[in-house]
Amino acid sequence: MSVTFPRGFRASSLSAGMKPSGKPDLALLVADEACSAAGLFTTNAFAAAPVKLSRKRLSHGLAQAVLANSGQANAGVGTIGDRDATASTAAAAEALGLSPDLVLACSTGVIGEPLHMTELLAAVPGLVEALSDGGGKAFAEAIMTTDTVSKQAKAEYGPYRAGGCAKGVGMIAPDLRLATMLVFVTTDAPVPPSEIGRLATEILEPKFEALTVDACPSTNDTVLLFASGEAGGEPVLPGTSAWDQVAEAVDEVGESLVQQLIADAEGVTHVVIVQVFGAATTRDARVVAKAVAESPLVKAAAFGGDPNPGRILQAIGSSGAEFLPQAVDAAIGDVRVIAGGEIPPSYREDGVELAREEMKKPEIVISVSLGAGPAESRALGCDLSYEYVRINGEYTT
Amino acid sequence: MSVTFPRGFRASSLSAGMKPSGKPDLALLVADEACSAAGLFTTNAFAAAPVKLSRKRLSHGLAQAVLANSGQANAGVGTIGDRDATASTAAAAEALGLSPDLVLACSTGVIGEPLHMTELLAAVPGLVEALSDGGGKAFAEAIMTTDTVSKQAKAEYGPYRAGGCAKGVGMIAPDLRLATMLVFVTTDAPVPPSEIGRLATEILEPKFEALTVDACPSTNDTVLLFASGEAGGEPVLPGTSAWDQVAEAVDEVGESLVQQLIADAEGVTHVVIVQVFGAATTRDARVVAKAVAESPLVKAAAFGGDPNPGRILQAIGSSGAEFLPQAVDAAIGDVRVIAGGEIPPSYREDGVELAREEMKKPEIVISVSLGAGPAESRALGCDLSYEYVRINGEYTT
Repeated sequence: MSVTFPRGFRASSLSAGMKPSGKPDLALLVADEACSAAGLFTTNAFAAAPVKLSRKRLSHGLAQAVLANSGQANAGVGTIGDRDATASTAAAAEALGLSPDLVLACSTGVIGEPLHMTELLAAVPGLVEALSDGGGKAFAEAIMTTDTVSKQAKAEYGPYRAGGCAKGVGMIAPDLRLATMLVFVTTDAPVPPSEIGRLATEILEPKFEALTVDACPSTNDTVLLFASGEAGGEPVLPGTSAWDQVAEAVDEVGESLVQQLIADAEGVTHVVIVQVFGAATTRDARVVAKAVAESPLVKAAAFGGDPNPGRILQAIGSSGAEFLPQAVDAAIGDVRVIAGGEIPPSYREDGVELAREEMKKPEIVISVSLGAGPAESRALGCDLSYEYVRINGEYTT
Repeated sequence: MSVTFPRGFRASSLSAGMKPSGKPDLALLVADEACSAAGLFTTNAFAAAPVKLSRKRLSHGLAQAVLANSGQANAGVGTIGDRDATASTAAAAEALGLSPDLVLACSTGVIGEPLHMTELLAAVPGLVEALSDGGGKAFAEAIMTTDTVSKQAKAEYGPYRAGGCAKGVGMIAPDLRLATMLVFVTTDAPVPPSEIGRLATEILEPKFEALTVDACPSTNDTVLLFASGEAGGEPVLPGTSAWDQVAEAVDEVGESLVQQLIADAEGVTHVVIVQVFGAATTRDARVVAKAVAESPLVKAAAFGGDPNPGRILQAIGSSGAEFLPQAVDAAIGDVRVIAGGEIPPSYREDGVELAREEMKKPEIVISVSLGAGPAESRALGCDLSYEYVRINGEYTT
């Protein structure tokens, strides 16, 4: 399981004392050699210091290690943040005997509180000592904040393995802890540095882009992909069957992590999957999928188990996507709720009860067809529950 | 009070039997003569039939009456909707002895259910008979759906009067009833048809644009402005002191209605006012104000009374507006929570408790300065409460 399933990776974690709970809070993932690596990062203008550092160091498509901590987000602290991100990765690089340029950083936790550097620096040597090729599980557990379970996945296609772990999505704990999503995916396929970015943007980006719990991109969201090449063989290039195998393995790991993340979202009682077809552009498809999945009215309806085509219509209509209203169809499960831009008479006759049954399912699937082109997308969301309001509103008492 | 406070307007309402509750559901506002009129309409692609009809008929800046109903939204019903909007305004025009082109329509209620035309048409003659120059209150009450109180306002500057009423904002009742906002503003100033649109877009649009309860623009949202000219005098043109007086009166009415609407929003326990200064463009200022006011994390924090600068930072940063992160300041009330793009040490020292006091107020004011230019805007929102989730999620049982 997890990031050490593919050959050529070791990982470790320990309790450095950066989290008040005393739980594991510092984790390290290391490849045996410098390897191909790519990252997807938050678009938030207040990107955290580790995001800026990792983005910069990945410009050549190479990395060998990532130091991840939970407890402090290292965001919203000004230049102290940059200094600490540089110093902590330098410490890891030194203990590993690597160039600092090959060490990335990820942080999750309190915004506006500087990294607890004394504890972090003291823990680095022990972290390096603890590295093992079975350390993926420990790594996955140390990056958890309010996650109730750790998220790990693995897949194997042909000669190639992929593994991964993740934390986050709409998890907000006391004291300014924000909803950071961190995702780490590894593979032992020999994907060259020039192509690793493509694997990340084509396979992983749409998957994690589709996730939406509360439409609030964190300052720290990061998805990292590493390819060690330890599976051996020729470099894997796009357009080959080898590429398809790697892509399949990475896709399976990404899909599993996405599903685990949404299932553990805050206060979730129903997962809401919105599939959009027939859009003029992929962007339009995404915009509509997110508009429906992020609508507080649709989310509240999902919580209450109420099919409510008017709210779906409203969300599609205000998305800003291009389409002809009279060409729009939608269904909840397999119950048609919008036909030709209208709520059809058949819906009021016997569709309501059928749709109500669909809304009781743990996974509610809303399909939208825009009739405007060939593009499609999906969004994975969840309902808006009392528990969400409680977690995010009442934790000060 | 209300729309009949200015000279030259009469109004009425009655129970036509279109609402199951039997409460007043049909309302008529009529000017003594054809008068200058302008409308602001929803941008939702599934605009309701009455929206399309009114938008078209206002293209010359003239109207004399508006027929408004509650109970059915006349949206999501296809061509039946257009037919019914045309037929119902034709009936009102005939009973009033007017050209149908001078009669507008507004609807609010169930999406996807056709207008109850039999009841509506039977009620029109009685509605005309009941018209009176004190009918504004009755008009305001008949357009209510889940509003707990009717919203009415009046103002007088120099020789000019303005009056208005409104319903809606995030009010969703059982059976697909959506969050339609309807606003009617009248004045007796002689604003010519060529300038009435400017008065609507300059004074009323930013005000009602700023309102946000759940970021879900309805299919039926409409703001109508009528100027009868019955106050007499020369045509009022922009750039004159007369224009300033009319603008002031309309502004005061609009502001009062906005405040009444947000105070009656669903499940509201705190109003959240977000003021944005120093934006490069008005659009940027609006985008940031809405991003903060609509963030479910900020809304839940407002419900819980928790000052949470990290969430404000997150919302500003993901808004898409142009600014330098290190130039951004923010305050809750007068407590500085972001300074130079960081959560300042002073906040953690003694700012937290002071900010917590600010969050207990019924009106929470969040100020953001982007340091990027001269533009400003504001958004009026509210907290995300259990009651919101209950109203919108649990009404099927």
